[in-house]
Amino acid sequence: MSFSGDDHRYMARALQLAERSRYITSPNPRVGCVIVRDGSIVGEGWTQPAGQNHAEVQALADAAARGEDVRGATAYVTLEPCSHFGRTPPCADALVRAGLARVVSAMEDPNPLVSGNGLRRLNEAGIETASGLLAGEARELNAGFVSRMTRGRPWVRVKIAASADGRTALANGQSQWITSAAARRDVHHWRASACAVLTGIGTVLADNPLLTVREVETTRQPIRIVVDARLDTPPDAAMLGCGTVWIACADDTGPRADALRAAGAELIRCPAVDGRIDLAALMPLLGERHINELMVEAGARLSGGVISARLADEILLYLAPCLMGDTARSLATLPQIPSMADVPRMRWMDVRKMGEDLRLVLRP
Amino acid sequence: MSFSGDDHRYMARALQLAERSRYITSPNPRVGCVIVRDGSIVGEGWTQPAGQNHAEVQALADAAARGEDVRGATAYVTLEPCSHFGRTPPCADALVRAGLARVVSAMEDPNPLVSGNGLRRLNEAGIETASGLLAGEARELNAGFVSRMTRGRPWVRVKIAASADGRTALANGQSQWITSAAARRDVHHWRASACAVLTGIGTVLADNPLLTVREVETTRQPIRIVVDARLDTPPDAAMLGCGTVWIACADDTGPRADALRAAGAELIRCPAVDGRIDLAALMPLLGERHINELMVEAGARLSGGVISARLADEILLYLAPCLMGDTARSLATLPQIPSMADVPRMRWMDVRKMGEDLRLVLRP
Repeated sequence: MSFSGDDHRYMARALQLAERSRYITSPNPRVGCVIVRDGSIVGEGWTQPAGQNHAEVQALADAAARGEDVRGATAYVTLEPCSHFGRTPPCADALVRAGLARVVSAMEDPNPLVSGNGLRRLNEAGIETASGLLAGEARELNAGFVSRMTRGRPWVRVKIAASADGRTALANGQSQWITSAAARRDVHHWRASACAVLTGIGTVLADNPLLTVREVETTRQPIRIVVDARLDTPPDAAMLGCGTVWIACADDTGPRADALRAAGAELIRCPAVDGRIDLAALMPLLGERHINELMVEAGARLSGGVISARLADEILLYLAPCLMGDTARSLATLPQIPSMADVPRMRWMDVRKMGEDLRLVLRP
Repeated sequence: MSFSGDDHRYMARALQLAERSRYITSPNPRVGCVIVRDGSIVGEGWTQPAGQNHAEVQALADAAARGEDVRGATAYVTLEPCSHFGRTPPCADALVRAGLARVVSAMEDPNPLVSGNGLRRLNEAGIETASGLLAGEARELNAGFVSRMTRGRPWVRVKIAASADGRTALANGQSQWITSAAARRDVHHWRASACAVLTGIGTVLADNPLLTVREVETTRQPIRIVVDARLDTPPDAAMLGCGTVWIACADDTGPRADALRAAGAELIRCPAVDGRIDLAALMPLLGERHINELMVEAGARLSGGVISARLADEILLYLAPCLMGDTARSLATLPQIPSMADVPRMRWMDVRKMGEDLRLVLRP
């Protein structure tokens, strides 16, 4: 399959539009669509919140509103148009009805049960189709959705804010603030992007955090999930006062469970090992609950647990330009490693300055 | 003082030439010189090893070898020409004799006792002078020499190779290799650049290192200095087999001292506190011994000691893309910090990819 420079340009624009839907589409994928006729963009759209229009329908509506004729036009879509009735009718049918001549998708649907069906439906209706243009970028944009569809579990991003020597708090527990306002604001962007934010009971008891998005504008708040095997979360915890909170616990019965449910929490019963939630077992449960992107904002124990269980797909490491020394608290509790050859190697994917700090991205 | 675009271009070239002398001039500064006549470069030079020609004399010799007339020409020098007899005659006199019309220097001599004398001597001989062009770059190139001249002590660069969570060895002491061959090679560049490499007796006993330059080509090896208050260095330590080794100790008498001297070491008697060398007292002693740039390659205790005594001018942090966990060894032993407000803040100065690793530069 070969694509022209124009094809690249329009798909890049479609990806840009998809980016506008980053905070709002959960649990649907982020999709952008550009409709081009005679070398001009005549319609643009991006996925709306779940239950509302997908990108293709938005782009067709945009063209209609502009009074543009889309018959014979080409649609650039960052994800294969859907062919099934979900909460909305199939987008493939809408494109057929509109009389498009060609549909280019960045990637096929990652759901193995429907992958290729949308393009086939378009083909059968006489529409020329092509796929795989800027596929890497498109997969990256929907890493969470792709993960849930292909692995049945969320894409897991572990956020850590530390000193240059890898410390997240002083010996006395003080940690506010290691990183700058710019770095903390960036964290809110990732929170807004996530379907859910995962933390541990230790953090809830120590910091009583909200873990909501406040520093960037969003119309959707992530679900907060507390890993709390024994239901030690106080029913008056701050996060229970707003939005959706799930608590992953070993036993969801008894008076503590009732009190937390009364306080608005939803309990997820999950296998536990030695009194601790089995994180590898929790992930598919979150997949079933439509969590695409999971952001872990936790202490050294839970972050370390996620990392050592090889569940972390990405570590987002904010490094402040200071040293806190060996008496300060470590960023991750990990099992002792017997030899250098056994140290799991990752890759540095991205490095940026965030205010006074660095933001480093590590992936396995 | 205003400089033309050509002035900038020629001084940038002079700085480039000075860079060629990086490994060889210790304890002299690195200097580059470009001689320009009628819009053409007619001579170039850079400082040779101590006792040999300075950059200006080299550039004049280069012009002579090319058969070029330098009368009425302009010389661009990265450091004010010297006006005193050291191991070589004054460069200012050579420039006067050559009949130059103008001398531009990037910075004045940082030695407060002679600063400005060279330019004055040129002025008195009727040569137009200017100074301060690309001064920041010139100071950076000779940070060590500037430090010794202005503070009487070396510029101290602490090198640390660690995992992303700030660990330099596993619990069992294994550390070979945390960082990649590319990062280790870069370390040798900095070693070659340093007048001396400082390490601790702990590292000598644990690793028996050479601390010589092997991965980059150089004609000069740095002096190795061991901080060893009680003279625990074994007389058969590997580093005593080659080149110059100094041992900073509390007492330079007795059989151990004699054995180490017999093995080729030079002992530096230094004040000690609680049986440990007073690092703040050691630095001026190294300044007196003409150490411009000191590279610290040590364990957590000595590195931490240098950092907490506020003697580190730069931390060169190589971060490998892996986590070693909280049982692994810390990069710096520092006194416990009571509050976040007391954590000394530094600045990220530079970030680079070195093979698979990152190289981060921190300065106070």
